[in-house]
Amino acid sequence: CLGGIAASSAMAQSSVAVYGVLDSGVVYTTNSNAAGDAVVKVPSLTGSVPSRLGFRGTEDLGGGLQAVFVLENGIGVDTGTAGQGGRLFGRQAYVGLKGAYGTLMLGRQINMTFLASVKSDVLGPNLFSMSSIDPYIPNARSDNAIGYLGAFSDFTVGATYSFGRDASAAGGPAATGCPGEAAGNAKACRQVTGLLGYDNKRYGLTATYDIMYGNTGAAAGLSTSDSSDRRATLNGYAMAGELRLGAGLMARKKVAATRANDLESDLYYLGASYPLMPALTLDGQVARHDVKASANDSTLAVLRLTYSLSKRTAVYSSIGRMRNGGLAAISLDAGGTVGAGLNQSGLSAGVRHAF
Amino acid sequence: CLGGIAASSAMAQSSVAVYGVLDSGVVYTTNSNAAGDAVVKVPSLTGSVPSRLGFRGTEDLGGGLQAVFVLENGIGVDTGTAGQGGRLFGRQAYVGLKGAYGTLMLGRQINMTFLASVKSDVLGPNLFSMSSIDPYIPNARSDNAIGYLGAFSDFTVGATYSFGRDASAAGGPAATGCPGEAAGNAKACRQVTGLLGYDNKRYGLTATYDIMYGNTGAAAGLSTSDSSDRRATLNGYAMAGELRLGAGLMARKKVAATRANDLESDLYYLGASYPLMPALTLDGQVARHDVKASANDSTLAVLRLTYSLSKRTAVYSSIGRMRNGGLAAISLDAGGTVGAGLNQSGLSAGVRHAF
Amino acid sequence: CLGGIAASSAMAQSSVAVYGVLDSGVVYTTNSNAAGDAVVKVPSLTGSVPSRLGFRGTEDLGGGLQAVFVLENGIGVDTGTAGQGGRLFGRQAYVGLKGAYGTLMLGRQINMTFLASVKSDVLGPNLFSMSSIDPYIPNARSDNAIGYLGAFSDFTVGATYSFGRDASAAGGPAATGCPGEAAGNAKACRQVTGLLGYDNKRYGLTATYDIMYGNTGAAAGLSTSDSSDRRATLNGYAMAGELRLGAGLMARKKVAATRANDLESDLYYLGASYPLMPALTLDGQVARHDVKASANDSTLAVLRLTYSLSKRTAVYSSIGRMRNGGLAAISLDAGGTVGAGLNQSGLSAGVRHAF
Repeated sequence: CLGGIAASSAMAQSSVAVYGVLDSGVVYTTNSNAAGDAVVKVPSLTGSVPSRLGFRGTEDLGGGLQAVFVLENGIGVDTGTAGQGGRLFGRQAYVGLKGAYGTLMLGRQINMTFLASVKSDVLGPNLFSMSSIDPYIPNARSDNAIGYLGAFSDFTVGATYSFGRDASAAGGPAATGCPGEAAGNAKACRQVTGLLGYDNKRYGLTATYDIMYGNTGAAAGLSTSDSSDRRATLNGYAMAGELRLGAGLMARKKVAATRANDLESDLYYLGASYPLMPALTLDGQVARHDVKASANDSTLAVLRLTYSLSKRTAVYSSIGRMRNGGLAAISLDAGGTVGAGLNQSGLSAGVRHAF
Repeated sequence: CLGGIAASSAMAQSSVAVYGVLDSGVVYTTNSNAAGDAVVKVPSLTGSVPSRLGFRGTEDLGGGLQAVFVLENGIGVDTGTAGQGGRLFGRQAYVGLKGAYGTLMLGRQINMTFLASVKSDVLGPNLFSMSSIDPYIPNARSDNAIGYLGAFSDFTVGATYSFGRDASAAGGPAATGCPGEAAGNAKACRQVTGLLGYDNKRYGLTATYDIMYGNTGAAAGLSTSDSSDRRATLNGYAMAGELRLGAGLMARKKVAATRANDLESDLYYLGASYPLMPALTLDGQVARHDVKASANDSTLAVLRLTYSLSKRTAVYSSIGRMRNGGLAAISLDAGGTVGAGLNQSGLSAGVRHAF
Repeated sequence: CLGGIAASSAMAQSSVAVYGVLDSGVVYTTNSNAAGDAVVKVPSLTGSVPSRLGFRGTEDLGGGLQAVFVLENGIGVDTGTAGQGGRLFGRQAYVGLKGAYGTLMLGRQINMTFLASVKSDVLGPNLFSMSSIDPYIPNARSDNAIGYLGAFSDFTVGATYSFGRDASAAGGPAATGCPGEAAGNAKACRQVTGLLGYDNKRYGLTATYDIMYGNTGAAAGLSTSDSSDRRATLNGYAMAGELRLGAGLMARKKVAATRANDLESDLYYLGASYPLMPALTLDGQVARHDVKASANDSTLAVLRLTYSLSKRTAVYSSIGRMRNGGLAAISLDAGGTVGAGLNQSGLSAGVRHAF
């Protein structure tokens, strides 16, 4: 009979893990508009780590082979909305196979620029961080992508290839309107990223390369399939006892559809992380954004204190300052605003809980 | 190596509970338009209780302290869509800490007006209920909020403070377009709510206060940051054996951007709930909406019979009547329509399942 | 006290199962536009089976009665977005009661046309399949519906009645903008579907009927409540050892608001499925779309090879060809494009994982 059809194709329940992070707090920044007014806000996706809810699982297929999947969304805890341009699973949505030679993934996924500085950037996606200078860093994901990540003793290699890098035109750094997959155009909205890393217990080095193409309608001036945006990074860290030192460089070159939208810049950072007490960690970082042939350079300095209430729960506070040269208008807080050419100071505090 | 990075930050699975309520049925109402036509519908969010799916958890941090979180969405079971203006987690999205002195919450959350009548309003968010008269009652939530709720022997105190009460402009009572968090304006879209309650086994009293401010673009005439909408409530209930009696008053005063949108009104209600048999409960309520300096007053009467098939599942049926004076156009069913100045009768039946 | 109110109404956790399917890959098709260009893509919802994430549960109510619910969404794994017009739970969202005489369901649900060919169509919702010819087949769902499905020894009977068949106007075959539930119009956007089936171990037959009405704003020319779209199907299958043979016919007649949008067509299919080895299955199917009084007929041929890595995980590859007569422009791949009157060939490969 057909009676059993309404019950769907799932077979085992134990294979799904529900996980996530919720992080929220309050942030104060000065000079949030041209008049120099301050603002107080509840951050959207992130205070110290972007909020998310995910579903993932693995299945052992025998012979060292596994099936893997991740569905992970981004949550604006302040308003209960889905992040990444309103995508339901905007952080990751992929299925893949994992074996001794690495993992092959199909779908929307983080790309190699996302992974580049994970171990070297001590602040990571903190509300005050390099993410404010280049919002692509925490949004380095590719739609319509094939991905590979493999580990061979101390070496890591990875790559993604996307047939259409960003299908959402909702706006913001995670929704830039380049769906690609265009008949007769093998460049439109394609994206390639690659990573090579070496890590041991005391230090590590990671280099990445990322090139994305545009097409009609794409944001940020990439409105032809010949226009492109390239980022190359080199990142390193070293442990000195319990002190972690991290530093890196991202060199970017955008060749837009018109020269006015071109951009060439370097982003340097240097940071340190130190456990003052087992449960109390101090992180500090400076970063410098050098826009070539322009006075619109910016400098960022952030200190963060994190007190762990458990392995899964912490409270934290950050103070930071962004110095904007020329007419630069890079806000201290990711997604925030600042008057053009004004410096901005800020203070944030919040709570983070992983589950 | 970096191979483990794609696996995310979650650490324990056991800490997440998936829960929800699904409630659907059929509703018939008369005089649904100016021509007096009737309509038959499947309700959207609610028949007797709004449908939802949620994820929540607690973590014991020692010393009586807990980390808590809730992600709860609203589901239109009739169409499979997300409620609260299309928010992914529109009912609640918060993270917090709970201790002996109460719970502190950060994010989108229900506010004190939501809690005001939970024990006194025997119909609650029924499709035919006070929610039709003031749709804010079941939508009393605040974006970008800090909340507190504490219980001290028989007393309950609570409050919320929002830096921007409603970031969604999708329309409807849950998406009124007031994101706030505006630089240089400490009133724009702010909202403060407070609650004081006393309960024992035989009776209880709850008083609340709620003031919200507007800003450019906000709905309901609150299009300046000086405009405001205030609601004060007093609610009580008493048990007489198995009979629960509940009554209350909500006094509202809206000072809009223009005088034509001003509103001053009182909403009174009186109801009773009685278990005819252990599994069969009869609820009845009358409510009166008195709009000051206007003939547009409305009176609501509802009877509801609920038969519990288990602790988690019930079938129910409601009959109701809304009398609209003057040109009042308050529908009997939440989210419905009625011809201006017409009375409306209705019948609903449905099934509710909690999980 | 009120302190417990923020904790919600769920009572038992064990009653929810999280399940799903993720299916992604790469597809190549020729003649994707009028110029005859080829395209390479990552499929959206489906490679071989549409991707989804669901929550479902049953509760034993005693006496053979059960409460049942399903919340199931569709996921575009390529972009992390929700399918079915952006609905959160676009595949199914219903609550119901199940007893010896069948299951009664309320909410958004698959209708009988969805179930018609489940056992006879060996390709099902494959990316290359009949779904390309009539996109309604994998989207045969009704909003605002009451559904019934019952099994009596070898017979299955089912029906749905919808008060408003499709509340989303987001576009595409799953979002056709007909919310219905209009006062004073008992035809607007109503939909009725019915099914009668017989199955035993060796063969089965299923017949269905489906009529949907339009209203102002509805897509596909059904812009009056008098316009309608009817589909009647007859489907059968037989087992010859391990070989499954399946065949069927769908006769369609659309009476649109204007004659230019009328359509009368037959869709025939014949297919076979055979396990070459226990883990390796070959499926093949041909289908013919005969548009009455028109040369715009199309013919589809597909071969698919599936290798099961486990009961839950498989890799597969399909080859297919669509011949478009006249100015027919039916793409080989569901949701794809083809130049009008051009034939299209294609190759796909992917991985599917159920959890």
